[in-house]
Amino acid sequence: MDSFRIAIVGSGAIGSYYGGKLAYAGSDVHFLMRGDLNEVRRTGLYVRGKGENFSVAKVNCYNSTKEIGPCDLVLIALKTTSNSDLTDLVPPLLREQTMLLTLQNGLGNEEFLAEHFGAERVLGGLCFICLSRISRTEIERYDYGQIVLGEYGRASQPRTHEVAAEFNSAGVTCSVTEDLLLERWRKLVWNVPFNGLSILAGGIDTSAILADVALRRATLTLMDEVISAANKCGHQLPGSAALEQIERTETMGAYKPSTLLDWEAGRPLEIEAIWGEALRCATAAGAPAPGLEIVYALLKALDVSHLPRSDSPRRVQDARKRVPPTWQ
Amino acid sequence: MDSFRIAIVGSGAIGSYYGGKLAYAGSDVHFLMRGDLNEVRRTGLYVRGKGENFSVAKVNCYNSTKEIGPCDLVLIALKTTSNSDLTDLVPPLLREQTMLLTLQNGLGNEEFLAEHFGAERVLGGLCFICLSRISRTEIERYDYGQIVLGEYGRASQPRTHEVAAEFNSAGVTCSVTEDLLLERWRKLVWNVPFNGLSILAGGIDTSAILADVALRRATLTLMDEVISAANKCGHQLPGSAALEQIERTETMGAYKPSTLLDWEAGRPLEIEAIWGEALRCATAAGAPAPGLEIVYALLKALDVSHLPRSDSPRRVQDARKRVPPTWQ
Repeated sequence: MDSFRIAIVGSGAIGSYYGGKLAYAGSDVHFLMRGDLNEVRRTGLYVRGKGENFSVAKVNCYNSTKEIGPCDLVLIALKTTSNSDLTDLVPPLLREQTMLLTLQNGLGNEEFLAEHFGAERVLGGLCFICLSRISRTEIERYDYGQIVLGEYGRASQPRTHEVAAEFNSAGVTCSVTEDLLLERWRKLVWNVPFNGLSILAGGIDTSAILADVALRRATLTLMDEVISAANKCGHQLPGSAALEQIERTETMGAYKPSTLLDWEAGRPLEIEAIWGEALRCATAAGAPAPGLEIVYALLKALDVSHLPRSDSPRRVQDARKRVPPTWQ
Repeated sequence: MDSFRIAIVGSGAIGSYYGGKLAYAGSDVHFLMRGDLNEVRRTGLYVRGKGENFSVAKVNCYNSTKEIGPCDLVLIALKTTSNSDLTDLVPPLLREQTMLLTLQNGLGNEEFLAEHFGAERVLGGLCFICLSRISRTEIERYDYGQIVLGEYGRASQPRTHEVAAEFNSAGVTCSVTEDLLLERWRKLVWNVPFNGLSILAGGIDTSAILADVALRRATLTLMDEVISAANKCGHQLPGSAALEQIERTETMGAYKPSTLLDWEAGRPLEIEAIWGEALRCATAAGAPAPGLEIVYALLKALDVSHLPRSDSPRRVQDARKRVPPTWQ
């Protein structure tokens, strides 16, 4: 395959950044956009950040995947909470050999794609990147950027390496893993505590979590649970992975996990992909995960109550007026 | 001892209710009050609720414990977060035989009193009561009301039964336990999950917690941890205690735990007495308590950030303006 025709489904920070990198490098990239379509068509896409600063003046963007038509590679970067939209969005992009590469968070996304579009099409990628969407047309990258790529339930194929090469030639460090699920679990060791505690502790960043003795201990406890669950599920992670992740995070400075930004912006949280699937896998494998269970339950309850966000102070006020009984 | 001279230290809902009951029945009761002193002096104390409706027109209340002077029995009903005030407040109330009865929540209060004023003085009581302070002078009782009373680290004495009789003759059902700490742990089986999750899940009552499948499971998990910790610490609670408490709570309707009311009113939370001491006991005894550890860490973090409460929306807003990096 000489040149990929690539579709980007989900043009938030992740989709816009990687799609923008590929387009800037000359790949044949086509973005599905909705609210942002006209502005991006008019002004292009700007990427700036650590050591890079470029714009893509002419962005191929579309209102529907029907207009894009069949592609060789579809990058899926929707929030996992919108996965059900994919059953309509993906079919117009498919030809016989089309690859579906999910760059989404957590567990269960490859399974979802496999179930609906055939397992043989599916690849998964983990994005290690700190970035933020500043406006409809501007992406800022703060650090990192690499992708770890793998086939779903298979060893790597020639096509896996071709996709990785496409990223690498666009300046995105991309490596191929032979065990995608192991890497997904390794990433969860970070996401489960930091994404969860950052919200539940009142909206704090990674450095505030690690600076608090009790939260730091809670972080380690959750990491240990995820590692045990991964091992029970057949994905061998060393116990040292927890402390390594904490030490790495300390060098990162003050980061807000993506789920905290979702929370602050009043967007739904990726609860099932990150905590729900991990808990279900742990439970099915007989791995006790009490901390994960509590964090999952609390996030679910908050997720329901925080939309729309601006209601919440009033809600508390109303509740107080009723002078409810208290149980000492 | 024919008649007790009784001091009430901490005239919130609990202190005012039990002190009011004793005073109404003719006991010799003296309240320490601060901000509410003049209003209570002027208008008296009103108690209403399930099957009772009375007022104490002339309330003996004072600005300082020096004015009260030595008593036979001191009921301590301060929030545990103000325990350090007791080192100044208690000494003027003491004579040789003065009993100190803490009606406070959680663990560690008897130990605190014993350390500062001598273990032989100390008794503890658990209050099972649903009540609310409607105004500076009005208490409403919604349900229950009984006290379980015990000596600190000793079997019951004649005086223990005399104190219980004083309550019973004032219409407060009061029984004597030979194992105060066991009863404290039994109450924690309820307080640890319900008081904690009600805040962390966004300000919800007991019925909302139990109606949510994931939170209900989290409740059971926390209860099991507390039961295991109690057992490891030498206080034998049966495993069935968890389900029993859940079933009892279901009959109670929608209750707000006292810590949730503290949270809503912007008061400091009784974190160390309820979660901190339980966690430290569990850890010292080698009982794993990952859920308790996480709940404790989260409540501590929220407790710091929620005072003053009205700041919190602005804080989030400010943080968002900084456009912090996100780690996917």
